[in-house]
Amino acid sequence: MKKLTIVVFSGEMDRAIAAFNIAIGAASMGMQATMFFTFWGLNILKRPSAGISPPGFIKKMLAAMMPAGPQKLPLSKLNMFGMGPFMMKKLMKQHRMPDVGEMLAMAKQSGVKVIACTATMELMGIPKEQLGQEVDSCAGVAAYLAEASESTVNLFI
Amino acid sequence: MKKLTIVVFSGEMDRAIAAFNIAIGAASMGMQATMFFTFWGLNILKRPSAGISPPGFIKKMLAAMMPAGPQKLPLSKLNMFGMGPFMMKKLMKQHRMPDVGEMLAMAKQSGVKVIACTATMELMGIPKEQLGQEVDSCAGVAAYLAEASESTVNLFI
Amino acid sequence: MKKLTIVVFSGEMDRAIAAFNIAIGAASMGMQATMFFTFWGLNILKRPSAGISPPGFIKKMLAAMMPAGPQKLPLSKLNMFGMGPFMMKKLMKQHRMPDVGEMLAMAKQSGVKVIACTATMELMGIPKEQLGQEVDSCAGVAAYLAEASESTVNLFI
Repeated sequence: MKKLTIVVFSGEMDRAIAAFNIAIGAASMGMQATMFFTFWGLNILKRPSAGISPPGFIKKMLAAMMPAGPQKLPLSKLNMFGMGPFMMKKLMKQHRMPDVGEMLAMAKQSGVKVIACTATMELMGIPKEQLGQEVDSCAGVAAYLAEASESTVNLFI
Repeated sequence: MKKLTIVVFSGEMDRAIAAFNIAIGAASMGMQATMFFTFWGLNILKRPSAGISPPGFIKKMLAAMMPAGPQKLPLSKLNMFGMGPFMMKKLMKQHRMPDVGEMLAMAKQSGVKVIACTATMELMGIPKEQLGQEVDSCAGVAAYLAEASESTVNLFI
Repeated sequence: MKKLTIVVFSGEMDRAIAAFNIAIGAASMGMQATMFFTFWGLNILKRPSAGISPPGFIKKMLAAMMPAGPQKLPLSKLNMFGMGPFMMKKLMKQHRMPDVGEMLAMAKQSGVKVIACTATMELMGIPKEQLGQEVDSCAGVAAYLAEASESTVNLFI
């Protein structure tokens, strides 16, 4: 079985859509798809209710400034203080396209493996409880590389 | 024959230059190179005369705000309201480097396959007529994955 | 021996950290890792003392505006005129994580090959003397593709 592994580094709506489209497409074609969420990409996996809990001033500030969950992501272009994402969501609804939260659920249903990066969780003070139930496991760079080195398609998004 | 497939997601001049350099280089080394233009990357393929025609308010706004064609791309860094791209173009001319439009033509001449993403075209209201004649075909994620899963080098730019 | 090749296109601290983590991880797992620094990524390799020397007005301006060396990199998100990188560095120190300069040294020690892109050096007027001693060689897209086409894992960061 061919494998596809994506590092989801970015926490933006447009890049998340691209990543999920590719992963869901691969799974539906019979490939084993794995998404490794790291850095800003971890924001996509946060529960909407994830508060601003981590100890330490810098982590609190980071938590306050970062979007919590798939419904709150900015756009990488034309963000315009939130107008862009609002318009993009509206456009996607008009075309009956799923939003990022629905894509995450679809990915899980089609068998995509969702992994959260432990180094980022520790650095930014995000405990496992603040991440959604979609997370299959938390792992580091060694686990990513084991998967990637067996994959035909590797992407960094 | 070894294959290389690039997803061109970004619509910025510097990233387009990198993508074309790699694809043209691969083709000249005897590899089969495919470029799959999606999201903001589709702006690179627009005809300069592509107007603001799509029906619907949001699509009209998007069309008005996005660059039309390879001569109008911003930089990802130091854009400075257009000063950056102007300077970069000047610098490239001084070094007798081709600009993005010329690179697109060179890519075609060396046999690089140019594919436009149908999902993006539909979402953003870009009909095929607004894209340049360089486009070989319009296709979706399944066509991309078929190509990518046979490629030795896969990149997301 | 499995190979991993990364194009380091971005000159941002967060993306540099991701690139080095993956390359160092790969080397420590016995893979041959190569990092090809191009465009803004070349800023990571600059000596801190690299002045504003290149001839020509545009190159001088570019040199003045770009960060010199691994200690001066911005963040891709939440940069906030330098506050973000300052906070991130502090956070990394608290967690006893190495900074980008230390990661570059660690990468070299674990056998990661560091290549600087000649086309960028020429375009931006960066002579080899302004780059740190960590650079193994300066090479073009053909050398990159030779490496990439033998690599199991290819990433563009």
